[in-house]
Amino acid sequence: MPITDLKTHFATGGTAVNGWCAIPSTITAEIMGRQGFDLMTVDLQHGLIDYQMALTMVQVLQGLPAPVLVRVPWNEPGIIMKCLDAGFAGLICPMINTAEDARNLVQAARYAPLGGRSFGPTRANMVHGAGYAKAANSSVLVLAMIETREAMQNLDAILAVDGIDGVYVGPSDLGLSLGYEPTLDPTAPEVLDAIATIGARARKAERLAGIHCGSPAMIHRAFGQGFHFASLLTDARLFTTAIAVQLATVRNTSAEVVKGY
Amino acid sequence: MPITDLKTHFATGGTAVNGWCAIPSTITAEIMGRQGFDLMTVDLQHGLIDYQMALTMVQVLQGLPAPVLVRVPWNEPGIIMKCLDAGFAGLICPMINTAEDARNLVQAARYAPLGGRSFGPTRANMVHGAGYAKAANSSVLVLAMIETREAMQNLDAILAVDGIDGVYVGPSDLGLSLGYEPTLDPTAPEVLDAIATIGARARKAERLAGIHCGSPAMIHRAFGQGFHFASLLTDARLFTTAIAVQLATVRNTSAEVVKGY
Amino acid sequence: MPITDLKTHFATGGTAVNGWCAIPSTITAEIMGRQGFDLMTVDLQHGLIDYQMALTMVQVLQGLPAPVLVRVPWNEPGIIMKCLDAGFAGLICPMINTAEDARNLVQAARYAPLGGRSFGPTRANMVHGAGYAKAANSSVLVLAMIETREAMQNLDAILAVDGIDGVYVGPSDLGLSLGYEPTLDPTAPEVLDAIATIGARARKAERLAGIHCGSPAMIHRAFGQGFHFASLLTDARLFTTAIAVQLATVRNTSAEVVKGY
Amino acid sequence: MPITDLKTHFATGGTAVNGWCAIPSTITAEIMGRQGFDLMTVDLQHGLIDYQMALTMVQVLQGLPAPVLVRVPWNEPGIIMKCLDAGFAGLICPMINTAEDARNLVQAARYAPLGGRSFGPTRANMVHGAGYAKAANSSVLVLAMIETREAMQNLDAILAVDGIDGVYVGPSDLGLSLGYEPTLDPTAPEVLDAIATIGARARKAERLAGIHCGSPAMIHRAFGQGFHFASLLTDARLFTTAIAVQLATVRNTSAEVVKGY
Amino acid sequence: MPITDLKTHFATGGTAVNGWCAIPSTITAEIMGRQGFDLMTVDLQHGLIDYQMALTMVQVLQGLPAPVLVRVPWNEPGIIMKCLDAGFAGLICPMINTAEDARNLVQAARYAPLGGRSFGPTRANMVHGAGYAKAANSSVLVLAMIETREAMQNLDAILAVDGIDGVYVGPSDLGLSLGYEPTLDPTAPEVLDAIATIGARARKAERLAGIHCGSPAMIHRAFGQGFHFASLLTDARLFTTAIAVQLATVRNTSAEVVKGY
Amino acid sequence: MPITDLKTHFATGGTAVNGWCAIPSTITAEIMGRQGFDLMTVDLQHGLIDYQMALTMVQVLQGLPAPVLVRVPWNEPGIIMKCLDAGFAGLICPMINTAEDARNLVQAARYAPLGGRSFGPTRANMVHGAGYAKAANSSVLVLAMIETREAMQNLDAILAVDGIDGVYVGPSDLGLSLGYEPTLDPTAPEVLDAIATIGARARKAERLAGIHCGSPAMIHRAFGQGFHFASLLTDARLFTTAIAVQLATVRNTSAEVVKGY
Repeated sequence: MPITDLKTHFATGGTAVNGWCAIPSTITAEIMGRQGFDLMTVDLQHGLIDYQMALTMVQVLQGLPAPVLVRVPWNEPGIIMKCLDAGFAGLICPMINTAEDARNLVQAARYAPLGGRSFGPTRANMVHGAGYAKAANSSVLVLAMIETREAMQNLDAILAVDGIDGVYVGPSDLGLSLGYEPTLDPTAPEVLDAIATIGARARKAERLAGIHCGSPAMIHRAFGQGFHFASLLTDARLFTTAIAVQLATVRNTSAEVVKGY
Repeated sequence: MPITDLKTHFATGGTAVNGWCAIPSTITAEIMGRQGFDLMTVDLQHGLIDYQMALTMVQVLQGLPAPVLVRVPWNEPGIIMKCLDAGFAGLICPMINTAEDARNLVQAARYAPLGGRSFGPTRANMVHGAGYAKAANSSVLVLAMIETREAMQNLDAILAVDGIDGVYVGPSDLGLSLGYEPTLDPTAPEVLDAIATIGARARKAERLAGIHCGSPAMIHRAFGQGFHFASLLTDARLFTTAIAVQLATVRNTSAEVVKGY
Repeated sequence: MPITDLKTHFATGGTAVNGWCAIPSTITAEIMGRQGFDLMTVDLQHGLIDYQMALTMVQVLQGLPAPVLVRVPWNEPGIIMKCLDAGFAGLICPMINTAEDARNLVQAARYAPLGGRSFGPTRANMVHGAGYAKAANSSVLVLAMIETREAMQNLDAILAVDGIDGVYVGPSDLGLSLGYEPTLDPTAPEVLDAIATIGARARKAERLAGIHCGSPAMIHRAFGQGFHFASLLTDARLFTTAIAVQLATVRNTSAEVVKGY
Repeated sequence: MPITDLKTHFATGGTAVNGWCAIPSTITAEIMGRQGFDLMTVDLQHGLIDYQMALTMVQVLQGLPAPVLVRVPWNEPGIIMKCLDAGFAGLICPMINTAEDARNLVQAARYAPLGGRSFGPTRANMVHGAGYAKAANSSVLVLAMIETREAMQNLDAILAVDGIDGVYVGPSDLGLSLGYEPTLDPTAPEVLDAIATIGARARKAERLAGIHCGSPAMIHRAFGQGFHFASLLTDARLFTTAIAVQLATVRNTSAEVVKGY
Repeated sequence: MPITDLKTHFATGGTAVNGWCAIPSTITAEIMGRQGFDLMTVDLQHGLIDYQMALTMVQVLQGLPAPVLVRVPWNEPGIIMKCLDAGFAGLICPMINTAEDARNLVQAARYAPLGGRSFGPTRANMVHGAGYAKAANSSVLVLAMIETREAMQNLDAILAVDGIDGVYVGPSDLGLSLGYEPTLDPTAPEVLDAIATIGARARKAERLAGIHCGSPAMIHRAFGQGFHFASLLTDARLFTTAIAVQLATVRNTSAEVVKGY
Repeated sequence: MPITDLKTHFATGGTAVNGWCAIPSTITAEIMGRQGFDLMTVDLQHGLIDYQMALTMVQVLQGLPAPVLVRVPWNEPGIIMKCLDAGFAGLICPMINTAEDARNLVQAARYAPLGGRSFGPTRANMVHGAGYAKAANSSVLVLAMIETREAMQNLDAILAVDGIDGVYVGPSDLGLSLGYEPTLDPTAPEVLDAIATIGARARKAERLAGIHCGSPAMIHRAFGQGFHFASLLTDARLFTTAIAVQLATVRNTSAEVVKGY
């Protein structure tokens, strides 16, 4: 059953498997969207996607059941507001390391009096209807990425910022910041602990927690730790691996899958 | 008679009706441009348009009589300079709330010694000729949006910043900031007073004043208040309404036009 | 209530108002699609739209309730098959003047044994599911445009071709062929008679009849004559007129709308 | 002084230097268009340009003084009509080898009663105004390429086809067909004679003659032989040579320019 | 070791696994191209790809080791010549059912005196160098698809047409034409026999034989039957399956992969 | 012999002539790339190019021998990281006027512990392999533009910032900042001295030095002054001049080349 209201879904115990679009294509996005993810995210940060392409992708994806989030490239007001006006149901913002970062994010992503988002929801109005103006400050998900040692230290302060709905863990950057090799499937206990801590603290603060995962097993673990939603690699990595595996089968060799992204 | 020099036109008592492009399409832009607007604006803030599309739109629009402005997404130097290098005749920058905001805008939009705009007017030179380097600081319009309570408080200081040619009113955001529902056709006296004040103060400071309007009547009022130019809704809203009205006629119902954007 | 099965809808007495996309833009298409047309058509003939753009437009439009047809540029197999593989629910083919033309159309648009359409419904399968291969020959609408004197003479033969679901009237070309000025709202009795004849003969042959109309009144007349569906101008003309009317209101003049397309 | 009416210009003894766009870019097209060519052509045959790109290019180019022609990819009705609806001032069609080829071209490019062009000049109407419907059959240039031995044999018959305004010589293909290496700057007497013959016969038949040239000298010769217009290489070749020459200067070597296209 | 000359590679006993691009994206194409296919094909027939996109894809793919073929949408001269001018190393043409079809294909794909391909290899010259003009008639692969009962009947005649380098089997269409459900992994003996026959006859005629396969096992069988190269499904199908399998793993269900395209 | 490792090349005394892409086109980029530049740069600042176009251009250019740099639009983290993730071999950042500017640039362009670049090298991994994560901080060139009086005053401090590989001179902006007309071929002794100083100081600090040049002669001078690489105008200017010169030859006039950009 498709999710119609993300906050209600999570508030009532639901979890969500998130499809991650890094390829700039409405076709791969549509294929992803039709395969039954509960949630979709168009990635403008590490994804190979800019605003104009993201706009067309969200147009296509919103014809399918899952709500669609955007990961913005950075905590910069211009692109954050453009993405929200494009009608995304929520946003994930990278590298929120301090409460001030979080407040700047809220300033860009929430209308007055909570923030300073400029009013002009051109496509959001088309998609979400005339009530969008009043509803947006509560309906639009605003998620802060926790992915550095500094962010860990400020975690509770970030979670306490009014207008932040939750957090999203980037395990590669978190590991890198903690001194390990970046990977989406970390094994270092310090990184695993940090991840568990984020899930627990977010739950305690009654905020949402999402995480980027490198395997189905990691998703299962994350759900067990209280995370509300989890993303599975990226379209690009899944595609790359699939091609590698098939070619290896054809050639009777084993696949050497490029890792690390 | 088309406007060849915006500053002279306004200085000699002229007004201008401004066509507003929010749809990312050279075709709708050309249709707009051929219908006889005195001025055109390509909106990269709330419009569904990014730089690359805006570039092609300005190429097409500059083959038609009206000068072409750009509204940039935010007061961020990178995109401001890219838009000016693309050859726009001027820019409207959102959310200039303080004199410091205005000075930052000038820093991005004016060449030394007035500001710090980097030199490389790739297409501007094509369109405006080899004299562009010397002329740009005076010929390019730089307009600051006044659209918050804070900006109202700093209005005279903003108008006094050297390099700012004038102001542009965003009634929706202004209303929202003042505590009302955002609308392009405000009726709250406080909002209407604020608008009138902006027009009067700009005139007094010998600066230009433009405004975004939700109806022809509001344009007429604005011209009566001394505004130099006024924009009529957006291409997207005019198109949406036209379709709704025609369909209602076909179905013998009355149109329910989506409002608010 | 959206149409889920065009043939059943028409067979049970339903009619449909058709929205016509000539502007190459997913945004104008989405605006059209959200306004409540019963049916949508993307025009690759006189529309300013080529295959790649049409593909993205149909992706967006199929997220909205109305079924989506394509008008192909000409009775050429390559583009006909590409459009059907893209997942359109049916096609309108211009200038079917003889039964041989109609048989060539069927050859391109129907799988064996009815025709010679090549198998590879890449996106059609995504949208319509794995049953598409078996269902397509009956579910995909194939409509022949009747728009010349020659086609009128061969009307019954065209209607009798197996694999043709119905006809679509192009009043401009029909008028031109009969010796009148081309217009979407003809008044010449010979043209009006021809139109009425097409509607009646199609009904008699138990085939569908659609028509391109220049006004709501013409749509009402067409439905009264037994036409199953009727298109209203184009997005481009409706937009042009809307802009002209609004600008005239602003300037207190009357609009001079460009006619003829 | 820009050409406002090509037929009058040529009829009163004018010649035209034609700029040739093979690069799919509105920017290179605009640079070409601003450099003072009398005429411009967007090449959809050997140019790397398809309809959708050509549409945007003609939108940009028609904001500049020179009239804009299109070379269509082949004598196929679909793309010919789409190009004319896009508003090009005329077309050059490759490989018209027989009078029947020429009649098929006229059938696609002229409205009834002269031909069977379908009516719906969506952008042509925007650009050329409401009178386009009546004027098009005489205002739109239709030029047949003469570029094979067979075409030479049928030259007078082709020139005599009603609706053909003139011919255009493709020296590379003409040379190839006559048994020589293809080149835009032929030296074989048989090829040079054929070219001279085409110019002379076209003049005698009171038709226009254009030619593709590989050098300014060849243009001068062509004008001396009575050709009305002449194209200079392509944007791609001029660009390639310019880069090669500059790099050679930097490296103090001589340029080895790739030839033959 | 990458293939530098396809004909030599096959002539010396080499085989090739072919990657098949149906997604209109340079990114998925590049991912495919980097995974080690021996050969790549951009599909303009059932692929969701038009000329302009194909041009950019071939630009990217030709930076990688494998030679790049194109499947054209149909046996239509305009698009065939455009694709060859774009620099593809060869083409696969659908639905060559008779020797006349094959001769028409040669007419479009070969320069005089073998055919009537128009000269102007704009990008082919860039990629393959100045010798392209002379070399193209022998270096460019021209492959005819054998995919109907009629084509089977005319197989030897098709193979005998001068200028045809070989054949390519479309098992779905071949099965459909023979009265079976279309599938890329046929099991009906009649279809399997037909495939084996094509491979054998092509070998006997000293022509190349390629085939589209639905699985690695089918590729192995094809190589055993003497086919020179074999394609594995499409990027779109491999991607769809990969997503389905991963999601099923996450959800602890089994994947229901959409089949048939 | 193509450069495989820029740092080694320069460290062993090599120089490089840099091709500069300002035109948003994969075709002009490919033409540039095939002409033998040692190095290529895609310009997102004054070039008419945004991220999505730059991505496709770098895909095409990386199939050719020369390494490819990007000039980012401004010292803004979002676009810097997106460009690096796209796989560019290095970046040139405009307007680095202070050591703090340089440290901010390093923060965006280097992974921890040197900086705060977020990890997710989607395409960089494809191109540069799985070792990219470890290698990037040393392999990716980070070059700071020195182009103001302020930057000259802070030159040694900027060169001393850890993570900065070198500097790049923008003579137009440098001249403008020093009070002269902006030009790529400066003659004012103060500007020439400043340029020489930058080259010398960079060499002394064992950092790289590059410069934008307006002529081959200026490149020769720069190499003589110790600059490691030098760019020649832009594709747009070279193209414009080439067209102007050719047209002047045709018309027997002399070219008036537009200067200044």
